[in-house]
Amino acid sequence: MQTATILNRQWIYKKRPTGRVGSEHYELRETELRSELAVNEVLIEARYFSVDPYMRIQQAERNTWEAPHPLGIVQRGGVVGQVVNSQSAAFVPGDWVVTFSGWQTHAVCHAGELQKLNTEAASVTTALGVLGMPGRTAWFGLMDAGSPKPGDVVVVSGAAGAVGSLVVQFAKRAGCRVYGIAGGADKCRFLVDNLRLDGAIDYRAFSAPAELSAEILRQTGGVDIYFDNVGGRITDAVIPHIKKRARIIICGAISQYDGGLDNPEQGPRFLHHILFQRATIQGILARDYTHRMDEMLAVVAPWVKNGEIYFAETIVDGFEKLPDALNSLFEGKNLGKLLVRA
Amino acid sequence: MQTATILNRQWIYKKRPTGRVGSEHYELRETELRSELAVNEVLIEARYFSVDPYMRIQQAERNTWEAPHPLGIVQRGGVVGQVVNSQSAAFVPGDWVVTFSGWQTHAVCHAGELQKLNTEAASVTTALGVLGMPGRTAWFGLMDAGSPKPGDVVVVSGAAGAVGSLVVQFAKRAGCRVYGIAGGADKCRFLVDNLRLDGAIDYRAFSAPAELSAEILRQTGGVDIYFDNVGGRITDAVIPHIKKRARIIICGAISQYDGGLDNPEQGPRFLHHILFQRATIQGILARDYTHRMDEMLAVVAPWVKNGEIYFAETIVDGFEKLPDALNSLFEGKNLGKLLVRA
Repeated sequence: MQTATILNRQWIYKKRPTGRVGSEHYELRETELRSELAVNEVLIEARYFSVDPYMRIQQAERNTWEAPHPLGIVQRGGVVGQVVNSQSAAFVPGDWVVTFSGWQTHAVCHAGELQKLNTEAASVTTALGVLGMPGRTAWFGLMDAGSPKPGDVVVVSGAAGAVGSLVVQFAKRAGCRVYGIAGGADKCRFLVDNLRLDGAIDYRAFSAPAELSAEILRQTGGVDIYFDNVGGRITDAVIPHIKKRARIIICGAISQYDGGLDNPEQGPRFLHHILFQRATIQGILARDYTHRMDEMLAVVAPWVKNGEIYFAETIVDGFEKLPDALNSLFEGKNLGKLLVRA
Repeated sequence: MQTATILNRQWIYKKRPTGRVGSEHYELRETELRSELAVNEVLIEARYFSVDPYMRIQQAERNTWEAPHPLGIVQRGGVVGQVVNSQSAAFVPGDWVVTFSGWQTHAVCHAGELQKLNTEAASVTTALGVLGMPGRTAWFGLMDAGSPKPGDVVVVSGAAGAVGSLVVQFAKRAGCRVYGIAGGADKCRFLVDNLRLDGAIDYRAFSAPAELSAEILRQTGGVDIYFDNVGGRITDAVIPHIKKRARIIICGAISQYDGGLDNPEQGPRFLHHILFQRATIQGILARDYTHRMDEMLAVVAPWVKNGEIYFAETIVDGFEKLPDALNSLFEGKNLGKLLVRA
C-alpha cells in the first residue's frame, strides 16, 4: 500500500455560462490526494473522460431533472480508469473500471461505485459509449419510446453523434428506413457509406428553413419516428412531415444549449401537427432505463463483440483539453462519442 | 308518402378563409328536395346544428387528418333532427335522431346513417355534446391519453368550452385537483361555482405572458396533466410548470384557427421541458375513439341521467345564424356546447 500522497489534477466547475461553455468556466486545480485507503476503498487513475452534451444542461442555475451542478466542485462525468490500489477484494491494481468520478486524474472510490470492465469483450471506451449511457439512451429511446416496426421511416437528428450514430444502426436492424440529419458533407458521407443509411441530410447546406424541410420530405416521404437530439430549426423542419401516429422522441436539444434553455428562442408553433396526426412526443433520459441495462446489453453486447455495430469515437488527447472538448461538442466537431484521453 | 318537393335551405361552403371564418365564406341557398324515398331512406328535418371549432381546421386547402372540406357543398356537421317520413322499418315520423347531414334544414338519409335518440334518457341535444363527439373526446382524451390518478393536478385550457367543461368534471370524478383556464370572469366563476373546480384562471386578466405563467404556478403548484384545447400563449404559460412524467393532451388549438395553422405564429421553444420532465405530448381526435363509444356511455350516460354532470349549452336561434355562430366560437362567446336551433 502506498503511503505518499498523490498529485491529483482536477477541473473545477467555477462559473455558470450564460451562452457557450468553455475553459473560462473552469479552473484547473492541483491537490494532494491521500493514498491511504479504508476498507472497500479503491484508488483509480482516470484514462478516458466522457464529454457529453447533457453536462451543459446541468450548468445553469435552476433545477432540470435534478438540482443544478454545484459550483466549486470537480465537473461531474463518466470515467474509464484503472485501479492503482485497492482495499477491496473485488479489485486489483490494473483492473479497468467505469465510474462517475468526474474530471480529475485520480479518485478514491468506494468499491460499490465501480463497475469492472471485461477487456476481452469490448474495448474499454465502449463503457462510455455503445455499452454505456449513450448506448442505453439510444436503445431504449428508440426501441421502447419509439416502438419501431419494419418499414417505418426513422429520421434522426444529430445522427453522427454519440447517441444518434447508434440510434440509426439500431433502427436499420429493426427493419426501418433510416435517414440521418447531420452537419457537413463528411458526416453525411459517414452516415451513408459507413452506417449504410437510406439517406443523409446536411442541414448546413440549407440556409432557408423551408428548403431544409422540403429536402427532408423529398428524401423520406414522411416520418414515422423522429429521434431528436438537436431541436431548434432542424426539428422545425421535420415536424410538418410526420405521418399518422408518429412518435417523436426528445433525447436532447443541443442546438439550444448555448443559452436557449434559459432564454428560449422563438420558433414556429407546431402542436397542430401533433393533433392532426395523433402523434406523440416523449422526453427520455438515460437514467430512466438504468434498471433495464441488462436487457440492452443482452442484445447489443454480442453485436459489439462480433463487430456488427460501428461505434465511432473522437478522442482528444490531454486532460488539460477537457473544457475545450466540451465546448467543441456544440460546434459539432465530433464524430460519434467524444472522449478525452488522460 | 309525400309526393311534393320540400324547400330545403342550405348553407353552402363557398370560399376558404385565410383568417377568421364568417358569413362571407358561405352562401345561403334554397333548393327543392325530392320527397320520394327509396327503400331504407328517411327524410329528416334538422332541429339542432352542432357548431364546432374543428370545422375551421378542415376549411383550409390542405390535408389534415383527412382531405379538406370541399367548396360548393353543404357545410358538414352533426345534426339532431326529427324524422318527417320514412321508408325504413327502424324509424317512424317524429323519431328524434342524430346524424351528420350538415347545415341544411332537411336531408334524405339512409337509415344506416341515423342513430335514434331515447328522449327519456337524456335531452336530445346531449347527442351533440356530453353523450356525443365532445363527450367522447373529453372522456377518452382524459381517461385514456391522460391516465389520471387521484391527486394529480389537471389543468384544462378552454375549460368552459364544450369539451373542456366535461374534461374538468371527469377529472374531478377521477380524484384530481382541477384548474380551468378560460377567458373572462364569468366563465371563471362558472368553473368554480358550478363545476366546483379547485381554481380558475382568467387568461384575459394577464397581458404579460410571464404573469399568466406565474399565476398558473401559484395556483396549481405544478401540472401533472395538461388538457389543451387552445394552444398559443396559454400553452406557453403552462408548459414550463409541468411535473415529472406529465401528460399533455392536444385536443385542439383554437387560438391558432384564425390562420395560424397555415402560417404558424412564433412562440417560445419548449421541448427541453418535455425532456427534463420525461413528459409526453399526445394529439387526440374524437374519431380515434368512435369504436369505443359504448365504454364511455356505460359510465357517463348514467351520470347524465342522474343529473351528476353539468352540461352547459349555448343555443343560438335561427338557421340563418349558423355562419355567425361559427365565427363567435373564435371570440370565445359560448359557454359549453354551442348549438344553433332551427
